[in-house]
Amino acid sequence: MTNLRNEAPIGIFDSGLGGLTVARALSERLPHEDLVYLGDTARTPYGTRSPQTVMNYAHACARVLREQRAKVLVIACNTVSALALDSLAGELFLPVMGVVIPGARAALAQSPRGRVGVLASQGTVRSGAYPRAIAKLQPGAQVFLEAAPLLVPLVEEGWLSGDVPRLALCKYLEPLVAHDIDALLLGCTHYPLLDSLLRPQLAALSGKDIPIIDSAHAIADEVADMIESKHLATERDDAGKLRIVVTDQGEDFDHAAERFLGRSLHGIAVNAIDL
Amino acid sequence: MTNLRNEAPIGIFDSGLGGLTVARALSERLPHEDLVYLGDTARTPYGTRSPQTVMNYAHACARVLREQRAKVLVIACNTVSALALDSLAGELFLPVMGVVIPGARAALAQSPRGRVGVLASQGTVRSGAYPRAIAKLQPGAQVFLEAAPLLVPLVEEGWLSGDVPRLALCKYLEPLVAHDIDALLLGCTHYPLLDSLLRPQLAALSGKDIPIIDSAHAIADEVADMIESKHLATERDDAGKLRIVVTDQGEDFDHAAERFLGRSLHGIAVNAIDL
Repeated sequence: MTNLRNEAPIGIFDSGLGGLTVARALSERLPHEDLVYLGDTARTPYGTRSPQTVMNYAHACARVLREQRAKVLVIACNTVSALALDSLAGELFLPVMGVVIPGARAALAQSPRGRVGVLASQGTVRSGAYPRAIAKLQPGAQVFLEAAPLLVPLVEEGWLSGDVPRLALCKYLEPLVAHDIDALLLGCTHYPLLDSLLRPQLAALSGKDIPIIDSAHAIADEVADMIESKHLATERDDAGKLRIVVTDQGEDFDHAAERFLGRSLHGIAVNAIDL
Repeated sequence: MTNLRNEAPIGIFDSGLGGLTVARALSERLPHEDLVYLGDTARTPYGTRSPQTVMNYAHACARVLREQRAKVLVIACNTVSALALDSLAGELFLPVMGVVIPGARAALAQSPRGRVGVLASQGTVRSGAYPRAIAKLQPGAQVFLEAAPLLVPLVEEGWLSGDVPRLALCKYLEPLVAHDIDALLLGCTHYPLLDSLLRPQLAALSGKDIPIIDSAHAIADEVADMIESKHLATERDDAGKLRIVVTDQGEDFDHAAERFLGRSLHGIAVNAIDL
Protein backbone atom coordinates (compact mmCIF):
# COMPACT_ATOMS: atom_id res chain seq x y z
CA MET A 1 0.00 0.00 0.00
CA THR A 2 1.23 3.46 -0.85
CA ASN A 3 2.06 5.64 2.08
CA LEU A 4 0.61 9.07 1.31
CA ARG A 5 3.23 10.97 3.26
CA ASN A 6 6.13 9.18 1.56
CA GLU A 7 4.73 10.08 -1.84
CA ALA A 8 4.54 13.80 -1.00
CA PRO A 9 7.17 16.06 -2.59
CA ILE A 10 10.30 17.51 -1.03
CA GLY A 11 9.82 21.28 -0.71
CA ILE A 12 12.73 23.55 -1.62
CA PHE A 13 12.67 27.25 -0.83
CA ASP A 14 14.96 30.00 -2.04
CA SER A 15 14.75 33.78 -2.26
CA GLY A 16 15.13 33.54 -6.04
CA LEU A 17 16.24 31.08 -8.69
CA GLY A 18 19.75 30.31 -7.39
CA GLY A 19 18.35 27.49 -5.25
CA LEU A 20 17.63 25.56 -8.44
CA THR A 21 21.27 24.45 -8.08
CA VAL A 22 20.06 22.65 -4.93
CA ALA A 23 17.02 21.23 -6.79
CA ARG A 24 19.43 19.92 -9.41
CA ALA A 25 21.70 18.29 -6.81
CA LEU A 26 18.66 16.77 -5.05
CA SER A 27 17.20 15.31 -8.24
CA GLU A 28 20.58 13.73 -9.04
CA ARG A 29 20.91 12.36 -5.50
CA LEU A 30 17.24 11.29 -5.09
CA PRO A 31 16.02 10.69 -8.66
CA HIS A 32 12.65 9.16 -7.68
CA GLU A 33 11.51 11.96 -5.37
CA ASP A 34 9.06 14.64 -6.51
CA LEU A 35 10.33 18.15 -5.82
CA VAL A 36 8.38 21.39 -5.45
CA TYR A 37 10.52 24.51 -5.64
CA LEU A 38 9.40 27.97 -4.47
CA GLY A 39 11.46 30.99 -5.55
CA ASP A 40 10.43 34.37 -4.12
CA THR A 41 11.45 36.15 -7.32
CA ALA A 42 9.17 39.13 -6.59
CA ARG A 43 11.29 40.06 -3.57
CA THR A 44 14.74 38.64 -4.26
CA PRO A 45 17.50 39.30 -3.17
CA TYR A 46 17.16 38.69 0.59
CA GLY A 47 20.90 39.03 1.35
CA THR A 48 20.82 42.80 1.80
CA ARG A 49 17.55 43.07 3.78
CA SER A 50 17.04 43.34 7.53
CA PRO A 51 16.64 40.13 9.61
CA GLN A 52 12.99 40.95 10.42
CA THR A 53 12.08 41.37 6.75
CA VAL A 54 13.86 38.12 5.82
CA MET A 55 11.92 36.39 8.60
CA ASN A 56 8.56 37.75 7.39
CA TYR A 57 9.22 36.74 3.78
CA ALA A 58 10.50 33.29 4.75
CA HIS A 59 7.44 32.45 6.83
CA ALA A 60 5.05 33.51 4.09
CA CYS A 61 6.90 31.32 1.57
CA ALA A 62 7.20 28.32 3.88
CA ARG A 63 3.42 28.38 4.37
CA VAL A 64 2.99 28.05 0.60
CA LEU A 65 5.18 24.95 0.58
CA ARG A 66 3.24 23.46 3.46
CA GLU A 67 0.05 23.99 1.46
CA GLN A 68 1.76 22.07 -1.34
CA ARG A 69 2.01 19.18 1.18
CA ALA A 70 5.82 19.12 1.24
CA LYS A 71 7.06 16.25 3.46
CA VAL A 72 10.29 18.04 4.33
CA LEU A 73 11.44 21.59 3.75
CA VAL A 74 14.88 22.29 2.32
CA ILE A 75 16.06 25.88 2.72
CA ALA A 76 18.36 26.48 -0.23
CA CYS A 77 18.83 30.15 0.64
CA ASN A 78 21.83 30.81 2.86
CA THR A 79 20.37 34.05 4.22
CA VAL A 80 17.15 32.29 5.30
CA SER A 81 19.08 29.30 6.65
CA ALA A 82 21.20 31.72 8.66
CA LEU A 83 18.38 33.85 10.03
CA ALA A 84 15.12 31.91 10.15
CA LEU A 85 15.73 28.16 10.35
CA ASP A 86 14.70 27.57 13.97
CA SER A 87 11.73 29.83 13.68
CA LEU A 88 10.51 28.02 10.52
CA ALA A 89 10.98 24.61 12.12
CA GLY A 90 8.97 25.84 15.12
CA GLU A 91 6.06 27.02 13.01
CA LEU A 92 5.81 24.26 10.43
CA PHE A 93 5.93 20.96 12.33
CA LEU A 94 7.93 19.57 9.40
CA PRO A 95 11.54 18.45 9.18
CA VAL A 96 13.39 21.59 8.03
CA MET A 97 16.98 21.57 6.81
CA GLY A 98 19.09 24.58 5.85
CA VAL A 99 22.30 24.80 3.83
CA VAL A 100 24.50 26.22 6.57
CA ILE A 101 25.20 23.12 8.67
CA PRO A 102 25.69 20.64 5.78
CA GLY A 103 27.99 23.17 4.08
CA ALA A 104 29.94 23.80 7.27
CA ARG A 105 30.33 20.06 7.90
CA ALA A 106 31.54 19.39 4.35
CA ALA A 107 34.03 22.27 4.55
CA LEU A 108 35.44 21.06 7.86
CA ALA A 109 35.89 17.58 6.40
CA GLN A 110 38.26 19.12 3.86
CA SER A 111 40.07 21.45 6.30
CA PRO A 112 42.82 19.48 8.05
CA ARG A 113 43.97 22.52 10.04
CA GLY A 114 40.42 23.79 10.62
CA ARG A 115 40.86 27.02 8.63
CA VAL A 116 37.65 27.52 6.64
CA GLY A 117 37.04 30.42 4.25
CA VAL A 118 33.44 31.37 3.43
CA LEU A 119 32.14 33.59 0.61
CA ALA A 120 28.54 34.69 1.26
CA SER A 121 25.97 37.49 1.06
CA GLN A 122 26.08 40.41 3.47
CA GLY A 123 23.06 39.07 5.37
CA THR A 124 24.65 35.65 5.82
CA VAL A 125 27.97 37.14 6.92
CA ARG A 126 26.32 39.47 9.44
CA SER A 127 24.13 36.71 10.87
CA GLY A 128 27.23 34.90 12.19
CA ALA A 129 25.57 31.59 11.23
CA TYR A 130 28.69 29.99 9.69
CA PRO A 131 31.03 30.78 12.61
CA ARG A 132 28.35 29.48 15.01
CA ALA A 133 27.81 26.27 13.03
CA ILE A 134 31.55 25.63 12.65
CA ALA A 135 32.29 26.35 16.31
CA LYS A 136 29.60 23.84 17.28
CA LEU A 137 30.82 21.14 14.86
CA GLN A 138 34.52 21.60 15.63
CA PRO A 139 35.42 23.88 18.54
CA GLY A 140 38.71 25.64 17.82
CA ALA A 141 38.25 25.71 14.05
CA GLN A 142 38.70 29.14 12.50
CA VAL A 143 36.31 30.78 10.05
CA PHE A 144 37.19 33.65 7.71
CA LEU A 145 34.21 35.33 6.10
CA GLU A 146 34.02 37.57 3.07
CA ALA A 147 30.80 39.25 1.90
CA ALA A 148 30.70 39.10 -1.89
CA PRO A 149 27.55 41.00 -2.87
CA LEU A 150 28.56 41.64 -6.47
CA LEU A 151 28.72 37.96 -7.39
CA VAL A 152 24.94 37.46 -7.39
CA PRO A 153 24.24 40.20 -9.96
CA LEU A 154 27.21 39.00 -12.06
CA VAL A 155 25.76 35.49 -12.18
CA GLU A 156 22.24 36.80 -12.79
CA GLU A 157 23.53 38.82 -15.75
CA GLY A 158 25.36 35.78 -17.06
CA TRP A 159 28.75 37.51 -16.80
CA LEU A 160 30.49 34.24 -15.97
CA SER A 161 33.77 34.92 -17.74
CA GLY A 162 35.94 37.90 -18.62
CA ASP A 163 37.73 40.61 -16.71
CA VAL A 164 34.84 42.02 -14.68
CA PRO A 165 33.90 38.83 -12.79
CA ARG A 166 37.58 37.80 -12.63
CA LEU A 167 38.63 41.06 -10.94
CA ALA A 168 35.60 41.04 -8.64
CA LEU A 169 36.42 37.46 -7.55
CA CYS A 170 40.03 38.44 -7.05
CA LYS A 171 39.00 41.29 -4.72
CA TYR A 172 36.87 38.90 -2.63
CA LEU A 173 39.36 36.00 -2.60
CA GLU A 174 42.51 37.95 -1.71
CA PRO A 175 41.72 38.47 2.00
CA LEU A 176 40.67 34.80 2.35
CA VAL A 177 43.87 33.59 0.74
CA ALA A 178 45.85 35.94 3.02
CA HIS A 179 44.29 34.01 5.96
CA ASP A 180 45.82 30.81 4.58
CA ILE A 181 42.53 28.89 4.36
CA ASP A 182 42.38 25.09 3.92
CA ALA A 183 39.07 25.07 2.04
CA LEU A 184 36.66 27.56 0.50
CA LEU A 185 32.94 27.15 1.19
CA LEU A 186 30.56 28.78 -1.31
CA GLY A 187 27.90 30.17 1.01
CA CYS A 188 25.44 31.20 -1.73
CA THR A 189 23.61 29.12 -4.32
CA HIS A 190 24.68 31.45 -7.15
CA TYR A 191 28.41 31.08 -6.73
CA PRO A 192 28.89 27.56 -8.18
CA LEU A 193 28.09 29.02 -11.61
CA LEU A 194 31.35 30.99 -11.37
CA ASP A 195 33.27 27.75 -10.80
CA SER A 196 35.30 27.86 -14.01
CA LEU A 197 36.69 31.29 -13.05
CA LEU A 198 36.84 30.63 -9.34
CA ARG A 199 39.12 27.58 -9.46
CA PRO A 200 41.96 29.05 -11.54
CA GLN A 201 41.69 32.39 -9.72
CA LEU A 202 41.95 30.76 -6.30
CA ALA A 203 44.86 28.58 -7.50
CA ALA A 204 46.67 31.61 -8.97
CA LEU A 205 46.25 33.67 -5.80
CA SER A 206 47.17 30.92 -3.35
CA GLY A 207 49.65 28.86 -5.37
CA LYS A 208 47.84 25.81 -3.95
CA ASP A 209 44.98 23.48 -4.79
CA ILE A 210 42.42 24.66 -2.22
CA PRO A 211 39.23 22.57 -2.29
CA ILE A 212 36.00 24.43 -3.08
CA ILE A 213 32.82 23.23 -1.36
CA ASP A 214 29.48 23.77 -3.05
CA SER A 215 26.79 23.58 -0.37
CA ALA A 216 24.19 22.34 -2.90
CA HIS A 217 25.85 18.92 -2.96
CA ALA A 218 26.44 18.95 0.79
CA ILE A 219 22.76 19.54 1.56
CA ALA A 220 21.58 16.97 -1.03
CA ASP A 221 23.60 14.30 0.78
CA GLU A 222 22.20 15.25 4.18
CA VAL A 223 18.61 15.41 2.90
CA ALA A 224 19.04 11.89 1.49
CA ASP A 225 20.24 10.67 4.91
CA MET A 226 17.40 12.42 6.71
CA ILE A 227 14.73 10.99 4.41
CA GLU A 228 16.19 7.53 4.88
CA SER A 229 16.42 7.78 8.66
CA LYS A 230 12.90 9.18 9.03
CA HIS A 231 11.46 6.53 6.65
CA LEU A 232 10.14 9.22 4.33
CA ALA A 233 11.51 7.95 1.00
CA THR A 234 9.13 7.44 -1.89
CA GLU A 235 8.35 3.85 -2.86
CA ARG A 236 7.94 4.67 -6.55
CA ASP A 237 10.77 3.86 -8.90
CA ASP A 238 9.93 6.08 -11.86
CA ALA A 239 11.58 9.47 -12.34
CA GLY A 240 10.47 12.10 -9.84
CA LYS A 241 8.91 15.34 -11.12
CA LEU A 242 10.01 18.90 -10.45
CA ARG A 243 7.44 21.67 -10.14
CA ILE A 244 8.57 25.31 -9.93
CA VAL A 245 6.51 28.05 -8.25
CA VAL A 246 7.66 31.67 -8.42
CA THR A 247 6.22 34.91 -7.05
CA ASP A 248 7.17 36.85 -10.20
CA GLN A 249 7.82 35.40 -13.63
CA GLY A 250 9.83 37.97 -15.58
CA GLU A 251 10.86 37.78 -19.24
CA ASP A 252 14.24 36.33 -18.27
CA PHE A 253 12.73 33.51 -16.26
CA ASP A 254 13.30 30.59 -18.66
CA HIS A 255 16.84 31.55 -19.46
CA ALA A 256 17.83 32.14 -15.82
CA ALA A 257 16.09 29.00 -14.54
CA GLU A 258 17.76 26.81 -17.16
CA ARG A 259 21.16 28.26 -16.29
CA PHE A 260 20.81 27.29 -12.60
CA LEU A 261 19.09 23.99 -13.31
CA GLY A 262 21.67 22.99 -15.91
CA ARG A 263 18.98 21.67 -18.26
CA SER A 264 15.94 22.65 -20.31
CA LEU A 265 12.61 23.45 -18.61
CA HIS A 266 10.87 21.07 -21.01
CA GLY A 267 8.36 18.96 -19.06
CA ILE A 268 8.67 21.04 -15.87
CA ALA A 269 5.49 22.77 -14.65
CA VAL A 270 5.98 26.43 -13.74
CA ASN A 271 3.38 28.48 -11.84
CA ALA A 272 3.46 32.11 -10.82
CA ILE A 273 1.63 33.02 -7.60
CA ASP A 274 0.92 36.38 -5.95
CA LEU A 275 2.02 36.55 -2.33
CA MET B 1 -3.58 83.26 5.33
CA THR B 2 -1.76 79.99 4.85
CA ASN B 3 -3.04 77.75 2.11
CA LEU B 4 -3.06 74.23 3.54
CA ARG B 5 -2.47 72.55 0.20
CA ASN B 6 0.52 74.76 -0.65
CA GLU B 7 2.13 73.86 2.69
CA ALA B 8 1.84 70.12 2.02
CA PRO B 9 5.04 68.26 1.11
CA ILE B 10 6.21 67.15 -2.30
CA GLY B 11 6.11 63.34 -2.38
CA ILE B 12 9.02 61.49 -3.96
CA PHE B 13 8.85 57.77 -4.65
CA ASP B 14 11.61 55.37 -5.61
CA SER B 15 12.08 51.62 -5.50
CA GLY B 16 15.06 52.09 -3.16
CA LEU B 17 17.42 54.80 -2.00
CA GLY B 18 18.77 55.92 -5.39
CA GLY B 19 15.94 58.44 -5.72
CA LEU B 20 17.54 60.43 -2.89
CA THR B 21 19.62 61.95 -5.71
CA VAL B 22 16.30 63.42 -6.92
CA ALA B 23 15.41 64.56 -3.37
CA ARG B 24 18.78 66.28 -3.23
CA ALA B 25 18.26 68.04 -6.59
CA LEU B 26 14.74 69.09 -5.51
CA SER B 27 15.88 70.51 -2.19
CA GLU B 28 18.55 72.54 -4.00
CA ARG B 29 16.06 73.77 -6.60
CA LEU B 30 13.14 74.35 -4.18
CA PRO B 31 14.81 74.98 -0.80
CA HIS B 32 11.62 76.05 1.03
CA GLU B 33 9.50 73.03 0.11
CA ASP B 34 8.98 70.14 2.53
CA LEU B 35 9.75 66.77 0.94
CA VAL B 36 8.58 63.30 1.93
CA TYR B 37 10.53 60.46 0.36
CA LEU B 38 9.35 56.86 0.18
CA GLY B 39 11.89 54.16 -0.71
CA ASP B 40 10.56 50.61 -1.13
CA THR B 41 13.78 49.13 0.26
CA ALA B 42 12.06 45.86 1.24
CA ARG B 43 11.43 45.04 -2.43
CA THR B 44 14.13 46.90 -4.35
CA PRO B 45 15.29 46.53 -7.13
CA TYR B 46 12.29 46.90 -9.46
CA GLY B 47 14.32 46.96 -12.70
CA THR B 48 14.40 43.20 -13.14
CA ARG B 49 10.76 42.43 -12.16
CA SER B 50 7.73 41.90 -14.39
CA PRO B 51 5.57 44.92 -15.39
CA GLN B 52 2.60 43.63 -13.34
CA THR B 53 4.68 43.28 -10.17
CA VAL B 54 6.18 46.77 -10.65
CA MET B 55 2.63 48.13 -11.09
CA ASN B 56 1.38 46.43 -7.89
CA TYR B 57 4.32 47.69 -5.82
CA ALA B 58 4.08 51.22 -7.25
CA HIS B 59 0.38 51.59 -6.43
CA ALA B 60 0.87 50.38 -2.86
CA CYS B 61 3.68 52.90 -2.35
CA ALA B 62 1.87 55.80 -4.01
CA ARG B 63 -1.06 55.28 -1.62
CA VAL B 64 1.34 55.73 1.31
CA LEU B 65 2.48 59.07 -0.10
CA ARG B 66 -1.12 60.17 -0.61
CA GLU B 67 -1.78 59.35 3.07
CA GLN B 68 1.19 61.61 3.85
CA ARG B 69 -0.81 64.38 2.08
CA ALA B 70 1.73 64.90 -0.72
CA LYS B 71 0.63 67.77 -2.99
CA VAL B 72 2.41 66.35 -6.02
CA LEU B 73 4.04 63.00 -6.64
CA VAL B 74 7.51 62.79 -8.16
CA ILE B 75 8.45 59.34 -9.48
CA ALA B 76 12.22 59.17 -9.12
CA CYS B 77 12.35 55.54 -10.26
CA ASN B 78 12.87 55.14 -13.99
CA THR B 79 11.29 51.69 -14.05
CA VAL B 80 8.10 52.97 -12.38
CA SER B 81 8.08 56.11 -14.55
CA ALA B 82 8.36 53.86 -17.59
CA LEU B 83 5.71 51.33 -16.60
CA ALA B 84 3.17 52.86 -14.22
CA LEU B 85 3.00 56.64 -14.64
CA ASP B 86 -0.39 56.91 -16.34
CA SER B 87 -1.95 54.32 -14.12
CA LEU B 88 -0.70 56.13 -10.97
CA ALA B 89 -1.94 59.49 -12.23
CA GLY B 90 -5.33 57.88 -12.92
CA GLU B 91 -5.64 56.47 -9.40
CA LEU B 92 -4.29 59.31 -7.32
CA PHE B 93 -5.98 62.50 -8.54
CA LEU B 94 -2.68 64.27 -7.89
CA PRO B 95 -0.19 65.83 -10.29
CA VAL B 96 2.28 63.01 -10.99
CA MET B 97 5.60 63.53 -12.73
CA GLY B 98 8.10 60.85 -13.76
CA VAL B 99 11.78 61.13 -14.67
CA VAL B 100 11.47 59.84 -18.23
CA ILE B 101 10.05 62.90 -20.03
CA PRO B 102 12.16 65.55 -18.27
CA GLY B 103 15.27 63.42 -18.88
CA ALA B 104 14.37 62.86 -22.54
CA ARG B 105 13.72 66.59 -23.05
CA ALA B 106 17.04 67.58 -21.43
CA ALA B 107 18.94 65.01 -23.51
CA LEU B 108 17.36 66.21 -26.78
CA ALA B 109 18.30 69.80 -25.90
CA GLN B 110 21.93 68.69 -25.96
CA SER B 111 21.68 66.46 -29.07
CA PRO B 112 22.07 68.69 -32.16
CA ARG B 113 21.77 65.70 -34.51
CA GLY B 114 19.08 63.98 -32.43
CA ARG B 115 21.21 60.95 -31.52
CA VAL B 116 20.53 60.15 -27.85
CA GLY B 117 22.19 57.33 -25.91
CA VAL B 118 20.44 55.98 -22.80
CA LEU B 119 21.86 53.77 -20.03
CA ALA B 120 19.07 52.20 -17.94
CA SER B 121 17.81 49.13 -16.08
CA GLN B 122 16.49 46.12 -17.98
CA GLY B 123 12.89 46.98 -17.05
CA THR B 124 13.26 50.55 -18.32
CA VAL B 125 14.89 49.42 -21.57
CA ARG B 126 12.23 46.79 -22.22
CA SER B 127 9.37 49.17 -21.49
CA GLY B 128 10.32 51.27 -24.53
CA ALA B 129 9.48 54.40 -22.51
CA TYR B 130 12.52 56.45 -23.61
CA PRO B 131 12.11 55.79 -27.36
CA ARG B 132 8.39 56.64 -27.01
CA ALA B 133 9.07 59.87 -25.09
CA ILE B 134 11.81 60.96 -27.48
CA ALA B 135 9.75 60.15 -30.60
CA LYS B 136 6.94 62.26 -29.18
CA LEU B 137 9.17 65.20 -28.27
CA GLN B 138 11.19 65.16 -31.49
CA PRO B 139 9.99 62.85 -34.26
CA GLY B 140 12.94 61.56 -36.23
CA ALA B 141 15.37 61.63 -33.30
CA GLN B 142 17.21 58.35 -32.74
CA VAL B 143 17.55 56.56 -29.41
CA PHE B 144 20.18 53.95 -28.59
CA LEU B 145 19.52 52.00 -25.40
CA GLU B 146 21.84 49.93 -23.29
CA ALA B 147 20.69 47.92 -20.25
CA ALA B 148 23.34 48.25 -17.54
CA PRO B 149 22.13 46.03 -14.69
CA LEU B 150 25.49 45.72 -12.98
CA LEU B 151 25.82 49.44 -12.26
CA VAL B 152 23.18 49.47 -9.50
CA PRO B 153 24.90 46.80 -7.38
CA LEU B 154 28.28 48.46 -8.01
CA VAL B 155 26.96 51.78 -6.69
CA GLU B 156 25.16 50.08 -3.79
CA GLU B 157 28.41 48.37 -2.79
CA GLY B 158 30.26 51.68 -3.04
CA TRP B 159 32.58 50.37 -5.76
CA LEU B 160 32.77 53.78 -7.42
CA SER B 161 36.37 53.60 -8.61
CA GLY B 162 38.84 50.95 -9.71
CA ASP B 163 39.00 48.39 -12.47
CA VAL B 164 35.74 46.52 -11.87
CA PRO B 165 33.36 49.48 -12.33
CA ARG B 166 35.62 50.94 -15.04
CA LEU B 167 35.51 47.76 -17.13
CA ALA B 168 31.78 47.28 -16.55
CA LEU B 169 31.13 50.86 -17.69
CA CYS B 170 33.36 50.31 -20.70
CA LYS B 171 31.32 47.25 -21.71
CA TYR B 172 28.07 49.24 -21.49
CA LEU B 173 29.38 52.42 -23.15
CA GLU B 174 31.14 50.83 -26.14
CA PRO B 175 27.99 50.02 -28.15
CA LEU B 176 26.56 53.51 -27.45
CA VAL B 177 29.77 55.20 -28.58
CA ALA B 178 29.76 52.99 -31.70
CA HIS B 179 26.35 54.54 -32.51
CA ASP B 180 27.98 57.99 -32.49
CA ILE B 181 25.67 59.50 -29.88
CA ASP B 182 25.42 63.26 -29.26
CA ALA B 183 24.51 62.99 -25.58
CA LEU B 184 24.28 60.30 -22.91
CA LEU B 185 21.21 60.21 -20.67
CA LEU B 186 21.58 58.45 -17.32
CA GLY B 187 18.26 56.62 -17.05
CA CYS B 188 18.69 55.45 -13.46
CA THR B 189 19.07 57.42 -10.24
CA HIS B 190 22.11 55.40 -9.18
CA TYR B 191 24.31 56.19 -12.14
CA PRO B 192 25.25 59.81 -11.30
CA LEU B 193 27.37 58.45 -8.45
CA LEU B 194 29.64 56.88 -11.05
CA ASP B 195 30.14 60.29 -12.66
CA SER B 196 33.86 60.59 -11.93
CA LEU B 197 34.54 57.31 -13.78
CA LEU B 198 31.88 57.79 -16.41
CA ARG B 199 33.16 61.11 -17.82
CA PRO B 200 36.78 60.09 -18.49
CA GLN B 201 35.69 56.66 -19.74
CA LEU B 202 33.19 58.13 -22.20
CA ALA B 203 35.77 60.69 -23.36
CA ALA B 204 38.43 58.01 -23.79
CA LEU B 205 36.11 55.73 -25.79
CA SER B 206 34.64 58.46 -28.00
CA GLY B 207 37.53 60.91 -28.29
CA LYS B 208 34.90 63.65 -27.82
CA ASP B 209 33.27 65.65 -25.07
CA ILE B 210 29.82 64.00 -25.04
CA PRO B 211 27.44 65.70 -22.57
CA ILE B 212 26.05 63.50 -19.80
CA ILE B 213 22.49 64.23 -18.62
CA ASP B 214 21.51 63.37 -15.07
CA SER B 215 17.71 63.09 -14.98
CA ALA B 216 17.61 64.13 -11.29
CA HIS B 217 18.38 67.72 -12.26
CA ALA B 218 16.08 67.58 -15.28
CA ILE B 219 13.10 66.51 -13.17
CA ALA B 220 13.85 69.03 -10.41
CA ASP B 221 13.60 71.84 -12.97
CA GLU B 222 10.29 70.55 -14.36
CA VAL B 223 8.80 70.02 -10.89
CA ALA B 224 9.69 73.65 -10.05
CA ASP B 225 7.91 74.82 -13.21
CA MET B 226 4.87 72.66 -12.50
CA ILE B 227 4.53 73.86 -8.90
CA GLU B 228 4.77 77.45 -10.10
CA SER B 229 2.23 77.03 -12.89
CA LYS B 230 -0.27 75.21 -10.66
CA HIS B 231 0.17 77.80 -7.85
CA LEU B 232 1.24 75.08 -5.44
CA ALA B 233 4.43 76.67 -4.06
CA THR B 234 4.85 77.03 -0.31
CA GLU B 235 4.58 80.54 1.09
CA ARG B 236 7.08 79.87 3.88
CA ASP B 237 10.60 81.17 3.50
CA ASP B 238 12.44 78.99 6.03
CA ALA B 239 14.29 75.85 4.99
CA GLY B 240 12.04 72.98 3.93
CA LYS B 241 12.30 69.66 5.77
CA LEU B 242 12.99 66.23 4.32
CA ARG B 243 11.35 63.14 5.81
CA ILE B 244 12.40 59.66 4.68
CA VAL B 245 10.11 56.63 4.87
CA VAL B 246 11.46 53.17 3.98
CA THR B 247 9.87 49.72 3.90
CA ASP B 248 13.03 48.07 5.29
CA GLN B 249 15.78 49.76 7.26
CA GLY B 250 18.87 47.56 7.04
CA GLU B 251 22.18 48.06 8.81
CA ASP B 252 23.62 49.86 5.79
CA PHE B 253 20.81 52.37 5.63
CA ASP B 254 22.58 55.46 7.02
CA HIS B 255 25.67 54.97 4.95
CA ALA B 256 23.78 54.32 1.71
CA ALA B 257 21.30 57.16 2.25
CA GLU B 258 24.07 59.66 2.96
CA ARG B 259 25.93 58.58 -0.17
CA PHE B 260 22.92 59.32 -2.42
CA LEU B 261 21.87 62.41 -0.51
CA GLY B 262 25.37 63.85 -0.52
CA ARG B 263 25.08 64.94 3.12
CA SER B 264 24.61 63.72 6.66
CA LEU B 265 21.20 62.44 7.85
CA HIS B 266 21.45 64.74 10.89
CA GLY B 267 18.08 66.43 11.45
CA ILE B 268 16.25 64.22 8.93
CA ALA B 269 13.41 62.06 10.29
CA VAL B 270 13.53 58.44 9.12
CA ASN B 271 10.63 56.00 9.58
CA ALA B 272 10.37 52.35 8.64
CA ILE B 273 6.92 51.06 7.70
CA ASP B 274 5.65 47.58 6.90
CA LEU B 275 3.80 47.36 3.59
